[in-house]
Amino acid sequence: MIQNITDLSRKMRNGKLRSRDLIEESFASIDADGAEGAKVFLSIYTDAARAQADWVDSGRQAGVSLPPHAGIPIAIKDLFDVQGEVTRAGSRVLDEHGPANQDADIVMNLRRAGFVIVGKNNMTEFAYSGLGVNAHFGTPANPGDSQTPRVPGGSSSGAAVAVKRQMVPAAIGTDTGGSCRIPAAFCGTIGFKPTSTRVSNRGAIPLSQTLDCVGPLTTSVSCAAVLDSVLSGGHGDDVESFPEGGLRLGVLDGYVTEEMDEVVAGAYQDALTRLSRRGVRLTPLELPQLARLPAINSKGGFVGADAYAWHKDLLETRADFYDPWVRDRFGAGKSQTAADYIAVGRERKHLQALVDAKQEPFDALILPTVQIVPPTLNELKDQDHANAVNLLCLRNTAVGNFLDLPAISIPCHAEGSLPVGLMLFGVRGHDRRLLSVARGLEQVIRGR
Amino acid sequence: MIQNITDLSRKMRNGKLRSRDLIEESFASIDADGAEGAKVFLSIYTDAARAQADWVDSGRQAGVSLPPHAGIPIAIKDLFDVQGEVTRAGSRVLDEHGPANQDADIVMNLRRAGFVIVGKNNMTEFAYSGLGVNAHFGTPANPGDSQTPRVPGGSSSGAAVAVKRQMVPAAIGTDTGGSCRIPAAFCGTIGFKPTSTRVSNRGAIPLSQTLDCVGPLTTSVSCAAVLDSVLSGGHGDDVESFPEGGLRLGVLDGYVTEEMDEVVAGAYQDALTRLSRRGVRLTPLELPQLARLPAINSKGGFVGADAYAWHKDLLETRADFYDPWVRDRFGAGKSQTAADYIAVGRERKHLQALVDAKQEPFDALILPTVQIVPPTLNELKDQDHANAVNLLCLRNTAVGNFLDLPAISIPCHAEGSLPVGLMLFGVRGHDRRLLSVARGLEQVIRGR
Repeated sequence: MIQNITDLSRKMRNGKLRSRDLIEESFASIDADGAEGAKVFLSIYTDAARAQADWVDSGRQAGVSLPPHAGIPIAIKDLFDVQGEVTRAGSRVLDEHGPANQDADIVMNLRRAGFVIVGKNNMTEFAYSGLGVNAHFGTPANPGDSQTPRVPGGSSSGAAVAVKRQMVPAAIGTDTGGSCRIPAAFCGTIGFKPTSTRVSNRGAIPLSQTLDCVGPLTTSVSCAAVLDSVLSGGHGDDVESFPEGGLRLGVLDGYVTEEMDEVVAGAYQDALTRLSRRGVRLTPLELPQLARLPAINSKGGFVGADAYAWHKDLLETRADFYDPWVRDRFGAGKSQTAADYIAVGRERKHLQALVDAKQEPFDALILPTVQIVPPTLNELKDQDHANAVNLLCLRNTAVGNFLDLPAISIPCHAEGSLPVGLMLFGVRGHDRRLLSVARGLEQVIRGR
Repeated sequence: MIQNITDLSRKMRNGKLRSRDLIEESFASIDADGAEGAKVFLSIYTDAARAQADWVDSGRQAGVSLPPHAGIPIAIKDLFDVQGEVTRAGSRVLDEHGPANQDADIVMNLRRAGFVIVGKNNMTEFAYSGLGVNAHFGTPANPGDSQTPRVPGGSSSGAAVAVKRQMVPAAIGTDTGGSCRIPAAFCGTIGFKPTSTRVSNRGAIPLSQTLDCVGPLTTSVSCAAVLDSVLSGGHGDDVESFPEGGLRLGVLDGYVTEEMDEVVAGAYQDALTRLSRRGVRLTPLELPQLARLPAINSKGGFVGADAYAWHKDLLETRADFYDPWVRDRFGAGKSQTAADYIAVGRERKHLQALVDAKQEPFDALILPTVQIVPPTLNELKDQDHANAVNLLCLRNTAVGNFLDLPAISIPCHAEGSLPVGLMLFGVRGHDRRLLSVARGLEQVIRGR
């Protein structure tokens, strides 16, 4: 079963598992009936992955000293450069771009750590929406509801579905306003967004140069810690669990909870009750200033201007190749002035300083990842409704991007219910500490 | 011919060279008549290196995406941990220590970049002298003089001889007072000491926790840049050559030149003349405060106290296993008070601030690496003379450690003469820039 990376790595080191077997299991899961493999992966590297897996196995057999996680299959979002290939970003707009000259930094980091890249995951076109719908390549259904088709969340849609369906133990996404954490919450996986400076995004098609982060989706906090290490240039270390007793969490309220639906409210409240019973100190924390975020970003914010700056020429020459809904959203950045943009930066610094001070007494802040359960595909046919739902889906996660806090989403729903994510915010730059806190609380949050 | 890493890597990538062939060439050079392989290497990993080389070759054959320098042989100083082995540090004192639990950080970094570690190099016992004499394992002769046996320089003695004799294209040393640069200057190779915070020394037996640096010895500046990248966690990038025209060098004088012997003075002056003719702007820079260094360090400095703190217990329990000359030097740190130690730190900050300001107008500072040619083994039989010569050998290089500047030694002697090194100091933390400047000047300095 493709799940915990540390377990799989240990089995491989002990000679009880071959990388090739893992890779074949991965491909079998992708090809399984009903798994929608073709909507989850936009590219699959069958031959290259098999060759690398065999090679890793032969090295291990020969006693070559390998990195600890050599041979683990992994997937990357469609917006990371792989040398010799056109990077598409879930779009048709870049089809005539030349192939990438070299691997993205995170692809190099994964490869040198021995991870085997099995393919590239589907995503929202150019990562510009939290729902996970893709008009060009199809939208993989949310694995959490076998009756009613629901969105998987985005923009790292395929990443979350691939991990949830155990096609890979982990997939690398990006997160500009919630694109790792929303699909993680919607599909019931872990989603981690680091501090923005922690992981290089060279070789990734940008959405917002200011906010883009690269992070993993995994089945456990431990796996997220391993990948955080590898992506940021380390050797794939896990973190220690922070002892839960006496941990202090600031429970956010107001802006980030006021539109919760009943399912989310119930699961979230149950998780808080479990935490409290285990001795975690929960203290309400009012941050009424967060309610100003829609006003601060009303002219488009960082994302509107950054995205338009990058897409400007393509919007003129390749307009017909965009999904019209995505194209219209990119176009909206056109009217932003430099003064508008600078003002957003000023507001950001102000808000960061304020929250930094409020955050000091706490080991982490806690809030629901998304206030609603995954919308049905049906309800999103109405465009105005889809826009409103998209904004609501992004609301809580985007707070983490605007403040540039490390953030992690952990499933907190009961077995058999629709997936619900609970989010922890850490202190900017202290990503390992947040992962350690999250690891300490994981089983309680998940109700295990 | 085992020389430029980038050339060798390109040949391997183009299928014109196998790693296994390189490894065999390396072992053949170590075993060659007169090469003193057993004094240059204290351990040789024949089977492991062959297995890894074959494995790299098979991966390349199978089209697996490999790091750029995968398959290049390399050596490491005897004080770096290799998992499962006792780390000896050129001594017999640690023989009963348990094996290392994991590879040193730089060993992990080399391995994940695909370098093949062929063995561990001889060194001064515990790295505590600049001459390169080892009472336990023998002293490899300096390859620069086939008539009169001379010291190779230390403490990374075997590293310099191994590179000079083309046993490996590069070897990793450490540098606390000059231990990469002195043997590089004495043997005619490149020796690089980074800023102390740039490369992790976890898993290296310390000499001074304050001053220890990890750096490469190589045949070219380009190779040093590649290894600086790998050692500091990067992917093995080279640097661009800084255009030489108009470069501004501050030429140090006084304390660092006043005891130059005739050979060094001649070679150094000729190099300055070549630089000047090529349009490099040479400006004398007086730093009379450097002459205070012997007084500042008169009670033992950082190295005396740091080394004694680490060796304290061993000096009691294993005294007989030390070379008496080394043991006496370690014992000298015993009488230092904490106030003495703190005073050295205060003097350091003061001197750093002063030199930082003086350094600003210059792209690099220039000085001889060592003021004298390699001493003969014969003259060092007199212990008082050996102590005085050792201090003189360390004088200029130790300035770089005390100020924590990145520093590189480049050969500047004429073909057939005794080796002489010329040193460049860069700005603290700007290691890549110093390497770029050095690469731009390398051929002129070498008189090629």
